Amino acid sequence: MTQRIAPRTGTSLRLAQGEVLTVIDPEGGQVGDLIAVADGDPGEIISNGRTFDYEETLRLTTGSRLWSNRSRVMLTILEDTAPAHDFLLTPCSEATFRHFYPDKPVHRGCFGNLAEALGPHGVTPDMIPCAFNVFMNVAVGADGRLAVLPPQTRAGDLVRFRAEMDLLIGLTACSAYASNGGSFKPIDFVIEAAG
Amino acid sequence: MTQRIAPRTGTSLRLAQGEVLTVIDPEGGQVGDLIAVADGDPGEIISNGRTFDYEETLRLTTGSRLWSNRSRVMLTILEDTAPAHDFLLTPCSEATFRHFYPDKPVHRGCFGNLAEALGPHGVTPDMIPCAFNVFMNVAVGADGRLAVLPPQTRAGDLVRFRAEMDLLIGLTACSAYASNGGSFKPIDFVIEAAG
Repeated sequence: MTQRIAPRTGTSLRLAQGEVLTVIDPEGGQVGDLIAVADGDPGEIISNGRTFDYEETLRLTTGSRLWSNRSRVMLTILEDTAPAHDFLLTPCSEATFRHFYPDKPVHRGCFGNLAEALGPHGVTPDMIPCAFNVFMNVAVGADGRLAVLPPQTRAGDLVRFRAEMDLLIGLTACSAYASNGGSFKPIDFVIEAAG
Repeated sequence: MTQRIAPRTGTSLRLAQGEVLTVIDPEGGQVGDLIAVADGDPGEIISNGRTFDYEETLRLTTGSRLWSNRSRVMLTILEDTAPAHDFLLTPCSEATFRHFYPDKPVHRGCFGNLAEALGPHGVTPDMIPCAFNVFMNVAVGADGRLAVLPPQTRAGDLVRFRAEMDLLIGLTACSAYASNGGSFKPIDFVIEAAG
């Protein structure tokens, strides 16, 4: 059963080890911020740095694994039809809205949505790390410069993750202007039993 | 007064707002992992993702600022004679030693050294994020591939940071083989009063 995350909102969900989470961009051009936490032990959380250490690349796609701060594999990417994802940048927040969009209304952003979704499970705002930014298109220049560009996903692009441990997941439909080209859209997801 | 961090060890130090910390590679070819924490409030800690958000580059050098997970500037780089630093990778640890150097003795690494140095101040191991890896030489390929190469620093290369808030700093002389070309060396530092 496909579930929908409304534009500029977020949710939490549980994945038992072996279950598969498919994240879908139903209209194309949208981003979802994903945080993984060890179910019942919020001190263990997804880590971009540990993932870059062990995967030895910034470009995470089919076959890549997403690692925790305790050097354990949390998720394996089983399938990926999207042109890119990002794991460099943090979730948009009230502070990033004020910084990047000083003339626009402030929104709590993916950070606020993740804090609300994960807070009841023991994840405080200070504990929220870089999210795995599904479908996000961040260009890295030869000189290291970063540019947030509109996602190049088409409607129906998806990425499938297998849970390698029991997980609590936070997932959003992104709220920031730059990361989704200024068009706020939903994100869909499906949870399937272990194969 | 110059203080020395012995090879494969770490320390903690306090920096009042305005004070300047100079980190020096006395022999060349060594790396130091730096963690900054708000003094007295360990929930606020250095964040690679927030820094990449606001500085919009992976290449942090003179003029760059290092940001906290609460979107506040912790340190400004006043001077930098080194060819590169890294902010992508996490501190080496027992787990990374087992992964990357299965035939060599396991060491607690910069992670263990930082955990010991910062633990008495309320920073638990799970809270240790990506360090700002002073002098570390990580090549990012056009395809996103990461390669840890020997530092290209010469003896005496340095980087000077101004504290923009009262900080507790963890700093190491790196313990891993790849990051310092297999030659474990000391790291020196100097703390100067606000100018």
